[in-house]
Amino acid sequence: VFNSQYFVELHCEKRVCVFGTGDMGRSLGLRLLQAGYSVMFGSRRPQSCNFLPNGAQVLSHAEAAQAAHLIFIAVQREHYDFLVPLAYHLKGKVLVDLSNNLKKNQYPEANAEYLQSLVPEAEVVKGFNTLSAWALQNGPSDANRQVYICGDRAEAKQVVLAVATKLGFSALDRGSLSASRELEDFPLQLFPLWRLPMRIAVGLTAFFFFYLLIREILYAYITQGKDISFRIMVSLANRVCPIVSLIMLALCYLPGVLASFLQLYRGTKYRRFPDWLDRWMLCRKQLGLLALGFACLHVLYTLIIPIRYYVRFWATERTVTQIRQNGTNEFITSRAWHSDSYLSFGILGFGLYVLLGITSLPSVSNALSWREFSFVQSKLGHLTLLLCTIHTYLYGGKRFLSASLYNWYTPPGYMLCLVLPSVVLLLKLLLVTPCVDRNITRIRQGWEKGADQRNSKNNKTLVL
Amino acid sequence: VFNSQYFVELHCEKRVCVFGTGDMGRSLGLRLLQAGYSVMFGSRRPQSCNFLPNGAQVLSHAEAAQAAHLIFIAVQREHYDFLVPLAYHLKGKVLVDLSNNLKKNQYPEANAEYLQSLVPEAEVVKGFNTLSAWALQNGPSDANRQVYICGDRAEAKQVVLAVATKLGFSALDRGSLSASRELEDFPLQLFPLWRLPMRIAVGLTAFFFFYLLIREILYAYITQGKDISFRIMVSLANRVCPIVSLIMLALCYLPGVLASFLQLYRGTKYRRFPDWLDRWMLCRKQLGLLALGFACLHVLYTLIIPIRYYVRFWATERTVTQIRQNGTNEFITSRAWHSDSYLSFGILGFGLYVLLGITSLPSVSNALSWREFSFVQSKLGHLTLLLCTIHTYLYGGKRFLSASLYNWYTPPGYMLCLVLPSVVLLLKLLLVTPCVDRNITRIRQGWEKGADQRNSKNNKTLVL
Amino acid sequence: VFNSQYFVELHCEKRVCVFGTGDMGRSLGLRLLQAGYSVMFGSRRPQSCNFLPNGAQVLSHAEAAQAAHLIFIAVQREHYDFLVPLAYHLKGKVLVDLSNNLKKNQYPEANAEYLQSLVPEAEVVKGFNTLSAWALQNGPSDANRQVYICGDRAEAKQVVLAVATKLGFSALDRGSLSASRELEDFPLQLFPLWRLPMRIAVGLTAFFFFYLLIREILYAYITQGKDISFRIMVSLANRVCPIVSLIMLALCYLPGVLASFLQLYRGTKYRRFPDWLDRWMLCRKQLGLLALGFACLHVLYTLIIPIRYYVRFWATERTVTQIRQNGTNEFITSRAWHSDSYLSFGILGFGLYVLLGITSLPSVSNALSWREFSFVQSKLGHLTLLLCTIHTYLYGGKRFLSASLYNWYTPPGYMLCLVLPSVVLLLKLLLVTPCVDRNITRIRQGWEKGADQRNSKNNKTLVL
Repeated sequence: VFNSQYFVELHCEKRVCVFGTGDMGRSLGLRLLQAGYSVMFGSRRPQSCNFLPNGAQVLSHAEAAQAAHLIFIAVQREHYDFLVPLAYHLKGKVLVDLSNNLKKNQYPEANAEYLQSLVPEAEVVKGFNTLSAWALQNGPSDANRQVYICGDRAEAKQVVLAVATKLGFSALDRGSLSASRELEDFPLQLFPLWRLPMRIAVGLTAFFFFYLLIREILYAYITQGKDISFRIMVSLANRVCPIVSLIMLALCYLPGVLASFLQLYRGTKYRRFPDWLDRWMLCRKQLGLLALGFACLHVLYTLIIPIRYYVRFWATERTVTQIRQNGTNEFITSRAWHSDSYLSFGILGFGLYVLLGITSLPSVSNALSWREFSFVQSKLGHLTLLLCTIHTYLYGGKRFLSASLYNWYTPPGYMLCLVLPSVVLLLKLLLVTPCVDRNITRIRQGWEKGADQRNSKNNKTLVL
Repeated sequence: VFNSQYFVELHCEKRVCVFGTGDMGRSLGLRLLQAGYSVMFGSRRPQSCNFLPNGAQVLSHAEAAQAAHLIFIAVQREHYDFLVPLAYHLKGKVLVDLSNNLKKNQYPEANAEYLQSLVPEAEVVKGFNTLSAWALQNGPSDANRQVYICGDRAEAKQVVLAVATKLGFSALDRGSLSASRELEDFPLQLFPLWRLPMRIAVGLTAFFFFYLLIREILYAYITQGKDISFRIMVSLANRVCPIVSLIMLALCYLPGVLASFLQLYRGTKYRRFPDWLDRWMLCRKQLGLLALGFACLHVLYTLIIPIRYYVRFWATERTVTQIRQNGTNEFITSRAWHSDSYLSFGILGFGLYVLLGITSLPSVSNALSWREFSFVQSKLGHLTLLLCTIHTYLYGGKRFLSASLYNWYTPPGYMLCLVLPSVVLLLKLLLVTPCVDRNITRIRQGWEKGADQRNSKNNKTLVL
Repeated sequence: VFNSQYFVELHCEKRVCVFGTGDMGRSLGLRLLQAGYSVMFGSRRPQSCNFLPNGAQVLSHAEAAQAAHLIFIAVQREHYDFLVPLAYHLKGKVLVDLSNNLKKNQYPEANAEYLQSLVPEAEVVKGFNTLSAWALQNGPSDANRQVYICGDRAEAKQVVLAVATKLGFSALDRGSLSASRELEDFPLQLFPLWRLPMRIAVGLTAFFFFYLLIREILYAYITQGKDISFRIMVSLANRVCPIVSLIMLALCYLPGVLASFLQLYRGTKYRRFPDWLDRWMLCRKQLGLLALGFACLHVLYTLIIPIRYYVRFWATERTVTQIRQNGTNEFITSRAWHSDSYLSFGILGFGLYVLLGITSLPSVSNALSWREFSFVQSKLGHLTLLLCTIHTYLYGGKRFLSASLYNWYTPPGYMLCLVLPSVVLLLKLLLVTPCVDRNITRIRQGWEKGADQRNSKNNKTLVL
């Protein structure tokens, strides 16, 4: 057994080596020099290397490999084979693989694992690859203070961690070298979990935009010859936003309900869900946050209503007409109740909506216990859905029965958007009825259908 | 001294054992298998264990204990005594206690400490108990990436930490085994610090709701026979919210002021505050955040005012009346000043309010130095209270003197809610007057009343 | 080599020593006693020390130094020399330097480094200095759970870390002792990165406030004798806020654009930017967040417009006038388009603005990959600037040509504020044209002007 304290001390010396004189190599070298390290570059042609940072030495690969215990590999994977002849010099040394690929799954195994297979006696650590050359050169800023490292030997990781700290980064240990595939994919990702929800949002928005465009603005133009195209900017937007928001909120709670019914049907929780359900459940947070975004836009669009020229114009017109016709307007208490309830449910629903959004901030959800998180996201989440659905039903009000609204035999948008939330709420209601709830709770505690008979002799009280 | 490097390597092998074949045990076993471990279940009746994950071996307790160095105990505390006869095999092994209790303080000592006392030669680590079986089975998601571990031996914790990392969790070391009581209580807690503030909020809301319901809506109905019950939904809500918000904001700054006066009176800061004051000071953040929630609702309720049917109706009516009566309406500059100032103070107060809320997000407050945090929470906090109090005074305006508002000899709600903030601001004003401020600063720097005389010979300049 | 396991065990015993009986020393001692440590105070005059926590022993410096392996130095730097004669007893012991200075750069080297130079054979660890005495005495609360430590010896840091964990703090290793200067400056800082942006914000606000005060309110008073001073509270504020917000948003994206042009001109990215540009680029986040704050105020000020007495008064007046003059008012579709577009662009711009703000929360930006962060902050950021600029242009509308608005030959505020964003957007447009974009991309990948010729023989494909 290699002495761990000695290993760390040996590798923590202030001399490090960088293989590769490209952008990454040079940027890293510059930063290392600034942090007080003495840096040696390893190069195939040490004589013809220009533009290297002042103060760095340039040696041949073999010389550099011998001279330092910590070696950064800033070379593309295709050229790793130059390391094979150096294997003897690299024995026991820490090699930090900085490489990235251009696309996912470009190679059968991760670059760092490939490197380890080439020089099995070196200690390969994957790291720093999530940084841009800019960050390597200029030191950490907001978005990239955090560096991930992984590797099979704890001491080797400790050495790299120490360097990261010296350079001003905070390094996070992500486990064994088998995690390097994940680290190499990280810089390539662009909101992978947001894609499906984003597509759903764009699809729904486009559908409802054209649906409402046709049945309101085009309808008015064709049947009555009126040009109300200006309504696209605010009125139409303010219909599409709440519709999409409510549907997406329902989509966010539907998979949980479906999963419960599946568990009930199967009578066990130990069988995997179908893939589509799994994927759906994984993006619930993103669905919910996008829904919140649309809800926020809806609130803003609603609040500016009284400032709009269109609204101010017609308010004046109505007053003028009333006076000219010498008519009287009666105050209808039920209408006041209706208008105020509608607004009030909307406000309370939106308040809870924002609360759900805040608790899904990483730092807030980390501070919650599992019980607290599930209380907020499940109990309060369904309450939010309920409030927003009531808000939409009240918006419809008596209009559901009025035939005049079914232009071209199409229902108004808010009716369409009520289908899914109503279904989700009904299913959830079923799930919380005592007899179903008892079954689902048993299943979630590990009970399995048919297990009672088979295990009748087995004392189950022993186990958790 | 046990060699630490050897210890870690020995226990980091890929063979682990799980005692207990219940829900927790099976979920954990499944996940361990997926992460590439070879898993052995220890069971009392190895022959009659069904439903265990495919690929796991089932052995008797003694066999399993011998075969692995890392053993997860997924058994309820009441059955721990089966481990006593195995003590010989468990010597030097790492036992991870996953157990939870059904309620707090169920047992005199923590489960993990009890386990350690049963098998004193094993290395007990408390951990993973904050996860649900679902999270153990499916791997980490947003709310439960973080796992807490504690234990007396650093190497044992390192071993468990490595497993946690492999399973995709990020483990946080919470110190020695004496912290396990805290870890066992964690999954049981449901917003413990929020309870008192929540009760205060509910109590205040209920009180002011009924108070205003009686003196406005019931009063109008009884004395004038008018049904203005529709005002409950928005108008009444929009009175209750700011009142509760302002009182809770004042309650949030009152304990700090009281504590200062107590220190002044006692002439020292080294005596503990009474328990009620301590508890009050600990929930200031929660008080403030709830107050912010009410303030947000107040803002939303205020902004939708012009959209309400009731408001639109009366705006039209007023115009119609004015024209029919051929009256003229004069623009009163002082009223414009008053209305605009009132709104402006409210907006600025609310802006600061939100700022206080943002800085209390865990990730933001962690990034602040102590001086910065106290600047924001104390200076800006009192400024917020001042602005919101002025906003409320301006809302009252000249009405304070109008006897007609004292329905049934009760003052309007906004007068009641001004009492506490005014007191807090006055006391704070007293504290920042130079002579009091000098005293309080001295005390906070460690000065004590009577110390000067007694320590006159003691050179105090030496110490910080 | 000192055995590391032994070192840690030796120093982790439950006996610790505190040098210094001032506020810091006493507060720390109290907390240590509560956490179960046995605490010895080292004092010059052990007999005359009053007010020390109950249960602590008081010894002479030499006795205390001998009795414990972990010693907290809660003494001011000026008195460190009393440690020199104790050097023999302090050999191999861990000294925790808690000291702070009264101002930055008070001494040539950090206190902890000075301490290390006085007792070179002790292991100095800087730590706990970021805590207030209050936090030390009462244990961690929200703002000060995190403690930073640094030191040259890993095991010494581990010992201090263990104590910090026991006291309830979570300690963060900030590297070698050379980082102690940074730790000592930390408690003194009061939003250092916010100063420049704050000054810019205050300067711009003051300038535009007086500019608009003069050209609108004073102008109306002098030329027409009208007193519209009440407009200061809302109307004027609602002009200053969006103007300052837009200018600051532009200032937030200008340095990035300038840096790109500088790199293009120089033909390399390896030369440092001028200092002023570097400093400017470092405070972009703060500039952006302040701009967001002003934008939020602008939104609130805009939304309360219909509630204002002034606005309600004139709305009624307009209707009354229209009826009395028996005039008709025609609905102008183009005006509706204009008003709605203006509002809609504002809402969308504000939505993105808030999104930028949320992604700059530490916990959110840490969860983003570099590619994601730059997508949000650069792509969405410029889109926000574009939307807000269009919003402002639409606000101006046809008024740009109307001479009557140039009171006293000065342009209205919104014209002034459009200059900078328009310039930034134009420059950015230049940068994204294909030919310029190709050059800048090459440079950012490490290409240098003139390098091609000189390195013609150098095979550049090898390196990253």
